[in-house]
Amino acid sequence: MKLSQYPIKTLKEDPKEADAVSHKLMLRAGFIRPLASGLYIYLPPMWRVLRKAEQIVREEMDKAGAIELRMPILSPRELWDQTGRFEDYTRGNNLFYLQDRRGVQLVLAPTHEEIITSLVANEVRSYKDLPVNFYHFSPKFRDEARPRGGLNRTREFPMKDAYSFDVDEAGLNASYEAMRLAYIRAFKRCGLEFLTIDADPGAIGGTGSQEFMVRSESGEDSVITCDTCNYAANIETAISKLATPSQDERLKDSHIEHTPNVKTVDQLVELFHLPASQMVKTILYEVWLKGSKEPEVIAVLMRGDFDINEVKLGKVASKMFNRPLAEMAIARPEVVIEKTNAQVGFAGPIGLEGVKIVADESVRPLKNFLCGANKTDYHVLDVKIGRDFAEPKFADLRNAVEGDGCSRCQNGKIRVTKGIELGHIFKLGTKYSRRPTPDDPTGLSATYLDKDGKEREIVMGCYGIGITRITTSAIELYHDKYGMIWPITIAPWHVVIVLANSIDSQQLEVGTKLYQELNQAGVETVLDNREERIGFKLNDADLIGYPYKLIVGKSLKDGVVELKSRKTGEVILLPTDEAIEKIKELVQKEFAKANQVE
Amino acid sequence: MKLSQYPIKTLKEDPKEADAVSHKLMLRAGFIRPLASGLYIYLPPMWRVLRKAEQIVREEMDKAGAIELRMPILSPRELWDQTGRFEDYTRGNNLFYLQDRRGVQLVLAPTHEEIITSLVANEVRSYKDLPVNFYHFSPKFRDEARPRGGLNRTREFPMKDAYSFDVDEAGLNASYEAMRLAYIRAFKRCGLEFLTIDADPGAIGGTGSQEFMVRSESGEDSVITCDTCNYAANIETAISKLATPSQDERLKDSHIEHTPNVKTVDQLVELFHLPASQMVKTILYEVWLKGSKEPEVIAVLMRGDFDINEVKLGKVASKMFNRPLAEMAIARPEVVIEKTNAQVGFAGPIGLEGVKIVADESVRPLKNFLCGANKTDYHVLDVKIGRDFAEPKFADLRNAVEGDGCSRCQNGKIRVTKGIELGHIFKLGTKYSRRPTPDDPTGLSATYLDKDGKEREIVMGCYGIGITRITTSAIELYHDKYGMIWPITIAPWHVVIVLANSIDSQQLEVGTKLYQELNQAGVETVLDNREERIGFKLNDADLIGYPYKLIVGKSLKDGVVELKSRKTGEVILLPTDEAIEKIKELVQKEFAKANQVE
Repeated sequence: MKLSQYPIKTLKEDPKEADAVSHKLMLRAGFIRPLASGLYIYLPPMWRVLRKAEQIVREEMDKAGAIELRMPILSPRELWDQTGRFEDYTRGNNLFYLQDRRGVQLVLAPTHEEIITSLVANEVRSYKDLPVNFYHFSPKFRDEARPRGGLNRTREFPMKDAYSFDVDEAGLNASYEAMRLAYIRAFKRCGLEFLTIDADPGAIGGTGSQEFMVRSESGEDSVITCDTCNYAANIETAISKLATPSQDERLKDSHIEHTPNVKTVDQLVELFHLPASQMVKTILYEVWLKGSKEPEVIAVLMRGDFDINEVKLGKVASKMFNRPLAEMAIARPEVVIEKTNAQVGFAGPIGLEGVKIVADESVRPLKNFLCGANKTDYHVLDVKIGRDFAEPKFADLRNAVEGDGCSRCQNGKIRVTKGIELGHIFKLGTKYSRRPTPDDPTGLSATYLDKDGKEREIVMGCYGIGITRITTSAIELYHDKYGMIWPITIAPWHVVIVLANSIDSQQLEVGTKLYQELNQAGVETVLDNREERIGFKLNDADLIGYPYKLIVGKSLKDGVVELKSRKTGEVILLPTDEAIEKIKELVQKEFAKANQVE
Repeated sequence: MKLSQYPIKTLKEDPKEADAVSHKLMLRAGFIRPLASGLYIYLPPMWRVLRKAEQIVREEMDKAGAIELRMPILSPRELWDQTGRFEDYTRGNNLFYLQDRRGVQLVLAPTHEEIITSLVANEVRSYKDLPVNFYHFSPKFRDEARPRGGLNRTREFPMKDAYSFDVDEAGLNASYEAMRLAYIRAFKRCGLEFLTIDADPGAIGGTGSQEFMVRSESGEDSVITCDTCNYAANIETAISKLATPSQDERLKDSHIEHTPNVKTVDQLVELFHLPASQMVKTILYEVWLKGSKEPEVIAVLMRGDFDINEVKLGKVASKMFNRPLAEMAIARPEVVIEKTNAQVGFAGPIGLEGVKIVADESVRPLKNFLCGANKTDYHVLDVKIGRDFAEPKFADLRNAVEGDGCSRCQNGKIRVTKGIELGHIFKLGTKYSRRPTPDDPTGLSATYLDKDGKEREIVMGCYGIGITRITTSAIELYHDKYGMIWPITIAPWHVVIVLANSIDSQQLEVGTKLYQELNQAGVETVLDNREERIGFKLNDADLIGYPYKLIVGKSLKDGVVELKSRKTGEVILLPTDEAIEKIKELVQKEFAKANQVE
């Protein structure tokens, strides 16, 4: 491409709407333009990056034995009703769907489990047809409540999703491991540094899952790592050891105190000069169990300085009632008032009846703590479990925090950082393939006949990569104050030829020749032949982050051009007639190194 | 791919739901599976064909200087209101759109003029930024009333669409010509035989357009060609010379006849033993002009043996009222009754008042013809224009028919065949880029400053290719009773290795080695190592249409394998140790030939 014929300009200033570095740089460098909330046009350089990332992922999927096909974006609602996910997704208003001219509702797929499982249910007959792993690249649609972070959370985004089908759990484990390794290879080839962490399966469901995370301040996920061993997990599932502060061991008698309008932990800290770690919050939740219309109410006791982890709580609540959960939310004020006979802010475990109580493990060792009195404007001090109220069920319900002990090693300390989720792999089991039963009418009946002719449910896994996340991660990881610094494998182009003076006929001639020959040699090259100052053009080149700038300027009279690496800043002078070979060699070497991922 | 690990089977019988050959074969060979009406899953072989066709189109677009990007599928309705196309598309219920969680209506783009024009309106400032041509591949969505013909008319389909932006008409003509040539090259490289024909711009709008058509009985378009010169056109716009039958030149006096319940031309032919070419049909149309709520009514006179061409009629009607048309339809019965004072079936030009009359040129030379009497159950015979009613406006309003004279050459005769539309190119002019005016508030104001600093409207073209149409056309063109016969450039794979006996360890070993080596050599190869009879496997290979079958069987004991061409049936015996080189050479030669399209 010759830039003189390219109309999209870079921006000098950071756009106001952007927060994340990658978002700012993508707007400034002309990689994306917003069309509407959460909807972006991928401009030519961005689209090149995305296609390269897609191709790397494709190659690794193929190597791992997965087979590419393509499923539609639109699919009939009935499929989604059959698995119960129409209800799951629409409850959060996340699903885009429409009605066609005949009144049939069609879903814009946010993911393709239903569609691929219905295909496999029709095609697979016997154990001989398994295992198989189908994947595709396709835009996905989610009506996000708060699209943000540039491309990190949009309403339409390109995704690679793969679905494995096995005869049993052992087969699933092998398919899952093959995908895990393929993901690692793909992300490494894209030049990314990332963590593989334990994660929660969430709305997709299933029995186990891992995420691939890039550390970044612009990420939306909290990632827990150990500073000593290699433990890493999403905060949703991370388990850590409590570092209990020392406390006065002498038991005092409990006493009620008037605390008018004092409702929050911070206010109580100020009023009583007591640390938050000496307080217990009592939070009521409403829990809708699958199949029941009326919610159950539970009370959660949490140490004042910790946060409730709702993923953990959901699992514990499901066990408490021995039923799967449909939804869970902090109780509405009217429910709190009804159950505690007090305004919101004064709930406590003492005398709380008609609700199940569950306490975080951090509450267990506490003595002489403060809690709500179930009476508006009153709290109770110097409370003790077992004396002032019956010992509740205990469980790990809190978010890990910086400084916690590692649960996997002896002396490790927990660190909390933000991360961008690149990919997520799931052991689904039979959630989608199951035969519906009167007890649970969901499932698409994807079964096979085993060696003995017995019908069995196929065991599934699913594996997703957000292709735009690869791009944003690379930018977040590799940039400086001048702009992006692309890894060679996913750079939009490898080289930009900058003419110091575009109206100098010799420079134009040599530059154009180099441009044509480099492209012919497979080195993707842009010619900056715009009639602009050299400084302006070099700034653009740094902003866009081409791995190499080839400057055709005054040194041409000595038969020399100047090659500068974006990453190292290193400059090499190349005789014009050797430039093509040298650059080709350099680029090939970098590719070889990047693709060496065993 | 090894077929022993592939679960999707071919079908022996033609599926009942399929009509077109390509539809039958795609279902039987495991290329597609229906998900819902007009929605298909593209199975692995189909997806490979589509990706290859896409890549060929991409290469030709790039060579022609077009620049690839990617626009979203979802776009806000306001853009479509701004051009008036929301109304145009929803009038026919063809548009898929939905409402998001905030109540904003989003359109699933059936085409991307609005989106690209709004981008260019924001980015382009000066004549120096032009010309530019942006293209993308993306799924398109149309809520077709009658999805059919397998992949020829679906509700979600992959398309390449390009949009050129120029400073003036001359620039547009150059951009258009570059696209026309790129299309010809791309379709030739896909191995297709096709026609380039004059066409109607239809809903896209603009001042000129051409279509690329493949002749096929399963096509939905009627293509007119001359048997002598190279004239070719879509029936919508085709102009031909009338071959007037001889008629009795002696004028008779007109007379009214009682024709109870006789309404159609066929019934009249039977009753009066008069040829249909001696009759004139009078058809009333309601015409809605842009911006007016009330329709106008026109009467069209057409010779009894010809059909009205509504595309031609629409243009003529627009000229008659000197206003653009919003919609046109055959008049409702109540309108016919009001205007003719007769039941439907008895309209005629004599005494018809309050409607404009326009007659097809075929009516002009008629003498002594029959027409309706504007009186229920009556017709008039031996009518003459100018004597029995005032001479109307004449225009070319009929569909060309087989046997008409060519309008371009002296002695050519017109042939009418069915065709599949592969692509369509349009000179849009300023339909989308125009600045809204009080008279016509549509347009997206995509303008530039010319050399004198004057603001001008950008002149646009747009260019579409239906990628699945390439596939169906190739199948329709190249198949036999055994199955598909793929051109090498878009074949899902180049070679299938058929093991005569998959449990013969020597065959398995040699076959697997050839399979690996061929793939390494860039020859895309499938290994049929299924434990099935050789006949079954060869039938599958013929159905799927691999260009070459490499049979590893008994001749192996003589160190020989057998290569058979799907297209010619030719068999070559290859020494096993030379097979890789020979096949690679053969395939490369075929590619070189296919890509030689200058």
